Amino acid sequence: MNSFGRIFRVSIYGESHGNGVGVLIDGCPAGLSLQQDDFLPDLKRRQGGNLKGTTPRKEDDIPAFISGVFNETATGAPINIFFENKNTRSADYEKQRAIPRPGHADFVANKKFRGFEDYRGGGHFSGRLTAGLVAAGVVAKKLLSKYYPEINVQADITKIGGEENIELGLQKAIDAKDSVGGIVQCVVKGIPIGLGEPFFDSVESLISHIVFAIPAVKGIEFGSGFAAAEMFGSEHNDSIENETGKTTSNNAGGIVGGITNGNDLVFRIAVKPTSSTPKTQNSLNWETGNMEEFSIKGRHDLCIALRVPVVLEAVTACVLADLLMIENAISLPS
Amino acid sequence: MNSFGRIFRVSIYGESHGNGVGVLIDGCPAGLSLQQDDFLPDLKRRQGGNLKGTTPRKEDDIPAFISGVFNETATGAPINIFFENKNTRSADYEKQRAIPRPGHADFVANKKFRGFEDYRGGGHFSGRLTAGLVAAGVVAKKLLSKYYPEINVQADITKIGGEENIELGLQKAIDAKDSVGGIVQCVVKGIPIGLGEPFFDSVESLISHIVFAIPAVKGIEFGSGFAAAEMFGSEHNDSIENETGKTTSNNAGGIVGGITNGNDLVFRIAVKPTSSTPKTQNSLNWETGNMEEFSIKGRHDLCIALRVPVVLEAVTACVLADLLMIENAISLPS
Amino acid sequence: MNSFGRIFRVSIYGESHGNGVGVLIDGCPAGLSLQQDDFLPDLKRRQGGNLKGTTPRKEDDIPAFISGVFNETATGAPINIFFENKNTRSADYEKQRAIPRPGHADFVANKKFRGFEDYRGGGHFSGRLTAGLVAAGVVAKKLLSKYYPEINVQADITKIGGEENIELGLQKAIDAKDSVGGIVQCVVKGIPIGLGEPFFDSVESLISHIVFAIPAVKGIEFGSGFAAAEMFGSEHNDSIENETGKTTSNNAGGIVGGITNGNDLVFRIAVKPTSSTPKTQNSLNWETGNMEEFSIKGRHDLCIALRVPVVLEAVTACVLADLLMIENAISLPS
Amino acid sequence: MNSFGRIFRVSIYGESHGNGVGVLIDGCPAGLSLQQDDFLPDLKRRQGGNLKGTTPRKEDDIPAFISGVFNETATGAPINIFFENKNTRSADYEKQRAIPRPGHADFVANKKFRGFEDYRGGGHFSGRLTAGLVAAGVVAKKLLSKYYPEINVQADITKIGGEENIELGLQKAIDAKDSVGGIVQCVVKGIPIGLGEPFFDSVESLISHIVFAIPAVKGIEFGSGFAAAEMFGSEHNDSIENETGKTTSNNAGGIVGGITNGNDLVFRIAVKPTSSTPKTQNSLNWETGNMEEFSIKGRHDLCIALRVPVVLEAVTACVLADLLMIENAISLPS
Repeated sequence: MNSFGRIFRVSIYGESHGNGVGVLIDGCPAGLSLQQDDFLPDLKRRQGGNLKGTTPRKEDDIPAFISGVFNETATGAPINIFFENKNTRSADYEKQRAIPRPGHADFVANKKFRGFEDYRGGGHFSGRLTAGLVAAGVVAKKLLSKYYPEINVQADITKIGGEENIELGLQKAIDAKDSVGGIVQCVVKGIPIGLGEPFFDSVESLISHIVFAIPAVKGIEFGSGFAAAEMFGSEHNDSIENETGKTTSNNAGGIVGGITNGNDLVFRIAVKPTSSTPKTQNSLNWETGNMEEFSIKGRHDLCIALRVPVVLEAVTACVLADLLMIENAISLPS
Repeated sequence: MNSFGRIFRVSIYGESHGNGVGVLIDGCPAGLSLQQDDFLPDLKRRQGGNLKGTTPRKEDDIPAFISGVFNETATGAPINIFFENKNTRSADYEKQRAIPRPGHADFVANKKFRGFEDYRGGGHFSGRLTAGLVAAGVVAKKLLSKYYPEINVQADITKIGGEENIELGLQKAIDAKDSVGGIVQCVVKGIPIGLGEPFFDSVESLISHIVFAIPAVKGIEFGSGFAAAEMFGSEHNDSIENETGKTTSNNAGGIVGGITNGNDLVFRIAVKPTSSTPKTQNSLNWETGNMEEFSIKGRHDLCIALRVPVVLEAVTACVLADLLMIENAISLPS
Repeated sequence: MNSFGRIFRVSIYGESHGNGVGVLIDGCPAGLSLQQDDFLPDLKRRQGGNLKGTTPRKEDDIPAFISGVFNETATGAPINIFFENKNTRSADYEKQRAIPRPGHADFVANKKFRGFEDYRGGGHFSGRLTAGLVAAGVVAKKLLSKYYPEINVQADITKIGGEENIELGLQKAIDAKDSVGGIVQCVVKGIPIGLGEPFFDSVESLISHIVFAIPAVKGIEFGSGFAAAEMFGSEHNDSIENETGKTTSNNAGGIVGGITNGNDLVFRIAVKPTSSTPKTQNSLNWETGNMEEFSIKGRHDLCIALRVPVVLEAVTACVLADLLMIENAISLPS
Repeated sequence: MNSFGRIFRVSIYGESHGNGVGVLIDGCPAGLSLQQDDFLPDLKRRQGGNLKGTTPRKEDDIPAFISGVFNETATGAPINIFFENKNTRSADYEKQRAIPRPGHADFVANKKFRGFEDYRGGGHFSGRLTAGLVAAGVVAKKLLSKYYPEINVQADITKIGGEENIELGLQKAIDAKDSVGGIVQCVVKGIPIGLGEPFFDSVESLISHIVFAIPAVKGIEFGSGFAAAEMFGSEHNDSIENETGKTTSNNAGGIVGGITNGNDLVFRIAVKPTSSTPKTQNSLNWETGNMEEFSIKGRHDLCIALRVPVVLEAVTACVLADLLMIENAISLPS
């Protein structure tokens, strides 16, 4: 299903080299101010700015409010936000159709959709779809900011290519004429105690569900995460200091028993290196049936992780908006 | 929501020291043979057998088929499998009610449910609920085995307390008089190409969603996972060898673009150390409002990770059963 | 799927002549007082009391709280309420297994579940499953009564066998030695303006969805309903009198554009005659492949409509609890 | 939620006098041929053709495939079909903003969405949204026609203003200078045995759920429907003739125990008279707080029921596509 959320519900659609990409948001409360300018900063962040290592393809990424917005305000009806594709050069992609690109979805898309997939530039699997996620994230962030102003969602790159200095990591890739991966960390401050459910809808479950909707993410860990597997219980346990739930450490990453405990939500994700490396590769040629040497043409990022923080904030904000509304649903007036 | 799955749908219920725990399974095809004996081996694995470091509390864990099974066969109606609690000693837990145990859900449960939670032995948050997950997993495994016999799901401990030798890791904990965490890896062989969706229902999304329903899991990674973040693209890309989709390496863990690519599904999870360490701890005493020294009484595992493999197999089998049925739904006869 | 509701979510399970029947309720706020005595009046109403025309089979119908209730209070965890089957006489049913009873689900259950269905007394299709619906309804009514005390849900029989005098209608059936149908009307007072959604989750959509979960219901109409199809617009339109939304008439049955308008919710359902008529019938004998004359043995109601009002109230209360919580979810604090 | 369906899932969006209206379809199998011409006949039927009593507003109603269609074929990705609004004259509607039109959603929309609703011509509540439903219906019908060619869905008007002769019913309205309602019947032939679930997802539940998404529908009945409430059991029961499930009568409308029984699916809906009657009406003026006499300006149908058959076919086809895919999901290969 191409949708996520129980109350604040997001569906994405579109293709890289078709008419455009977009997002349909259901469950946004009426009255939220939504102006194009609200969306531009995060959409710009998604484009990677002028960072070394980001693709030169630049779409204007102007969000068009197709529905659900009237007088620059959410009406309560479904909000459809659309990004027209303008700057497409699909000829770049047609050429290598014979060779499904390793690391890309070309092969699986072809098998799953029996040859009917839109293969131009990744089609529906393209990272361009994250424009819709970012737009939904702006709506969610605006909701949080209006109704829960104490909440702050922020994601940052912590490592590129194993280096804590981003420039250094990128330079490694440039020197190696290769692409490179990275780690992005998200911290949410000001979150109330009690969001989430004990099992299937644990906060970790919901966040990881939507986070793996971001292309290229291959791992997630909360709090100490994988390091916890090497700790003793007495080290890992976070002692509760007082009635607010504040703990002396935060190995749990702000989630215990699947439920937020009032401390900062902290999690990190692993982003694989961009599959479109400039390096020569070997892979199956569908037409010949043999493996062949080839190299990727077209415009690509050296390090897709550079664009991920704003997308990670976006999906996190969407989950939080949904969780807060669900908790609100249960918290009936007495 | 305490349910998961679109077609093969699992809901759990119950408390550690109440009447019992159980699982309601919706969407199991009629005709599947289900006998009590089918469930005993996995339920026994969940109890941790006679491994050092597992709790001495032993429930019989006999599954009672409350509904949906007739003549030892699934009828197509919802299957309710129940495990009665027999061996409860809640007095152990009442005592420390004044101090919410660090690492446990005591504090968040109390806040979320405003003091109405069943606090005895973790109540609904207890690891005992995983008996229901294991039972659902047996049903899912039997479905896979009947309809997709080439699929094999297997989870194993790969590290305890940072050691690749399980005995060594446990001994560390015993020596330290502390609890310890571990890593569990799951490998699924024989999985068809094309399961999953590009974004919100990527295979990683669905697996991680249900995996974080297992208590104590704090991280998940697919294929190379976090190591991918330090790799170059040319290293990480898995070259496709032939039309079957077989790749020369499996850094993707069998999933590209959110879709299974026909190679082994490989993922690992981080299990935190058992929160109930024998060590003396400090935490808030609700009655005094101050932090106090205390120690956990009762029967507990030194290393909860030891019990996790069978639960991990169970939830993985549930997701796969659901994904296969969804794919079957779309693959209409021509 | 054997579940309904987005926040207040109800799943039913069980069989007529198996271990019992029950209901799993997810999303009930913690703190709601739930005692066995709360359930007995509605469960008694469901049994039809001592009305002429109701079956002499009498189960005790004592609800057992399997989970989610502690100290006679909802804990916030899933609530499993179970009714053990005690008074089963399945021999009655085995006999006529060769002939799928007209009007009953015997034939379709056999085809859908490929012969694996529990056929004893209707199995999972039995009207006995409505005990679970009634129990869920009691929980929902208690929620309404606690948080929205101005809301009142009441269902009454308005016609039996075409007669507005119930006794008269029943007597017709008794005289004819046949079963008979009826009309039940439900009125909800005190409902706020604004519940429901414009299209797929219109209040009519949600109510009718759950109402057709009640066995034997074959029609539903809101406000003037089918009579509206014969009216002029100027007759049917309900003029709004003042800011409260009160209308001079209520042809809309309290719902406009799918949304509650603050007036009484009014709808009626058509209940078909009990399929198990005492009359001799003709139908296929599976064993011979021919139609045969036969008559139904066993204990049955002459008029199942007599038992429907309390079930109709129950499912209506469930939908309202869900709708109110959803509306609460959206109505974030400012 | 503005979505419906578990596998074949439809979401609608848009406003009457905004950018346009549309539909997002998730779960359409790849490979289905979809050309603009496929949609035009049903879209034309929705416009009411040249029938007396249908509005003179004529949009071109050209479906634009925004996503999910490539080379005139469904790709397997979400299909977004959009209808641009061209022929809007919102000035007509602004004028009467002070008076919420009786029978329309003006009042409830204003209350539910706290004054932020798009009020122009009904906004999101407009009947124009049914263009999206019809488009989804065309996709569903094409699926049925490709994979289940024996299935035929057809809806027809059976009564207008109480008359079985449509012309006569319309003339009554014209003579009375008023609008008028009608009855529409839908018959589905060739449907397999076994679709639907016993309780919450009975075929009646799912059909009625989506049918009440059609504006102006106020009642639904299956088979004999409300007449069944006046019948004896021996009259109402449909005797099974042979192993195909064929019954001698079809009072059940093809559904027993919530499940299709292989006979024609037959149901009827009551459509209220168009709320926008040419007659002078009385209703609240929000500005003065008093009831006032007023009359509706703008372009409106005398009998909205005339346009309903194609919409009814559309939503029925959507439910059937979903049900068939769900049944396919469960029917695993052996």
